[in-house]
Formats: sequence, structure tokens, C-alpha cells
Amino acid sequence: MDHLRPVELRHACRLINHGPTVLVTSAHGGRRNVMAAAWSMPVEFTPPRVAVVIDKKTFTRELVAAAGAFALCVPGAAVVGLTYAVGSESGRDVDKFARHGIDARPGPVLGMPIIGSGCVAWLECRLIPERHTEDAYDTCFAEVVAAAADERIFSNGHWSLRDDNVDLHTLHHLGGGNFARADAVQRPRPAR
Amino acid sequence: MDHLRPVELRHACRLINHGPTVLVTSAHGGRRNVMAAAWSMPVEFTPPRVAVVIDKKTFTRELVAAAGAFALCVPGAAVVGLTYAVGSESGRDVDKFARHGIDARPGPVLGMPIIGSGCVAWLECRLIPERHTEDAYDTCFAEVVAAAADERIFSNGHWSLRDDNVDLHTLHHLGGGNFARADAVQRPRPAR
Repeated sequence: MDHLRPVELRHACRLINHGPTVLVTSAHGGRRNVMAAAWSMPVEFTPPRVAVVIDKKTFTRELVAAAGAFALCVPGAAVVGLTYAVGSESGRDVDKFARHGIDARPGPVLGMPIIGSGCVAWLECRLIPERHTEDAYDTCFAEVVAAAADERIFSNGHWSLRDDNVDLHTLHHLGGGNFARADAVQRPRPAR
Repeated sequence: MDHLRPVELRHACRLINHGPTVLVTSAHGGRRNVMAAAWSMPVEFTPPRVAVVIDKKTFTRELVAAAGAFALCVPGAAVVGLTYAVGSESGRDVDKFARHGIDARPGPVLGMPIIGSGCVAWLECRLIPERHTEDAYDTCFAEVVAAAADERIFSNGHWSLRDDNVDLHTLHHLGGGNFARADAVQRPRPAR
């Protein structure tokens, strides 16, 4: 986690603005879990708020409801195998952190598990209880209370996707266990 | 639009599963609009449902509320300039389709504008009225009622991001007018 630096809250939503797959972590009563989620998005920049779909059948959802909190950790391309693995199994009967050798420490504000192993950013989030959307759409709203990113790929509020940091580029789940990686694209200057 | 082929509804959410920036279109009472939106996600595969953040101050939101419908059109990398342009201006006083020479036709079920120009997929969506989340989070839920994708990059329910179709790869807004492109990444086989 040597390269992780705090991100100002006004820039926190940029960490997931472009639709990366995230690892949702939570912890409560001595138990913890991590799952992959392709379905998350910011809903407001200031205050920074996000929405994430967490199936009501998952162990993570149980922990999130109990803790009133979760973290979104953003995996880099180097850990595509791990990302797939933690999205393919339940943590109800096994500690996925231990099984996969995932390095984690408690987040600074809410104590949610912050993943070091291969993650390039994280957002610690306080659940905003919305019973109806949680029930009807498995959609959980939350406010971001702390965030950080790897300075080698995100600094001064901006992503910098380069050829020399390709292992840190974000992952985007195409479905069926297939992933894309975000690479920079140039926008042509408008004609004058 | 020669290459667009219908997508089965059970696969429709895969079109935005990986977090691409979309063009939200709507039309009502002889007026129409298009805006770029980075913040959208699926919330359910079957029935296919999505959520998209549409600021309540926008003209698009007004049209969506009146029509009870919208379309999400997924731009390819070749039209990054257009995607930026329609995300940077209001359509309240100008028809952005005419201004930018955007080719559009009415969608098959709800008549929402389906963009041809450079778009590689579209989802026609019926708004599910959710007053509270629309008010509190600008988050609009909707059910997908028809979808299509460019057969050169999406077929049999799967994206195929290759070197020979790079202009069709999806765009992902990093913030501040900077975009990433989705490129394929290989997932290592698990050790036996």
C-alpha cells in the first residue's frame, strides 16, 4: 500500500466515474467479506455519493446492513484473476481474505477492510439507508467519507493511464468472467 | 446503422455492464435531446433494468419525465469528440442532433431517438417512476424493452474487443473531458 495517497473528497467520485469493476468489502461482529461488483456508479460529486448493486442473497449485503458501511476497492489489471475469483464464490463459509492471501487493513473512518493487494484506489462509504431501493433493486446508496488512490496512476484528481503503468489500469467486467482494461484515448481537438 | 442487430433482452444489460459512457436520448411533444452520461449501471439482468443519473436541471430530465422513456446509446471510440460535445452543452435552446449532424431514428417500442452515428449499441428504456430516488439522487430506474448492438463487436451476448475493431470499443469518462477506451485483457487461468 506504499503508493496509496489520500484523495480529496471532492475528487473521490472520479475514482469510479469510468465504470470500473470494484471489490466491495465489509465487516461486522468479527466477520468480514469481499465480493466483486460490476454495478456501481457515482450519483453526486459533492457531497460524494455512490450507488452499488449488492444482491440481497449475498453475505456482503448482510454485513453491509449490519455495519451500515462498506468500502469499494478498485483492482488494477494485474489482479484480474483475483477479481474474478472473489466474484465467483461466497464468503459465508470461508474467509476469502485468508484463502486468497489478500492483504487488508481497517479503513480510517469506518474500519471497513481496505485491500492492498493489487488495488489502485479505495472509497470508504457510509450506507444511506434506503429501504425501498435496497429491496426493489438491490441498490445501496452511500456517502463516501474517505478515499485514496495510487499516486502512480491517479494524482491531483486525475487518472493517468499510460503505457508504463498498464498493470494498474482499471478493470471493467464485460460479463461471463471476461474483462476489459481502461486505456487512454485521445480526444480530437474541435475544428475551429 | 447497417451493422446493428437485435440483442436478446436477457443479454441487454451486458451492453453497459462494464461502465461505458452512454448518450441518453429522449423525445416528447415534437422536441428531442441527447446528453452524455457517465453514471449508469444495470441493476438487474432479468427483467433487464438499469439506473442512470440525469440531473434534474437538464432538458433531458424534463423530456424523460414527460415521455416516461429514454434510450441509452453506447458511443464507440471513433466518436469521442461528439460524445464530449453533447455532454458539454444544453439542448434546451438548440437541437443537438441537427447541430452535430447526428443520425437518429425512432426506437421500435417507445419511439426514443436511436443514434446511428458512431454508436455501437442501444437500449430503449421505459422509466420506472421512483419519485424519491429521482428527487434525492437524480437516479432514474428503468426497464429495458428493446436493445441492439453492432455485430462487429457484440454477438451472441458477448463483447469482442479486438485490435481490428478498436474504433468501436466503448468509451469511459475519466472526468474533466478525458476518456478511456475499453481494451481486452486476458484473465490468467487459475493454478491447478
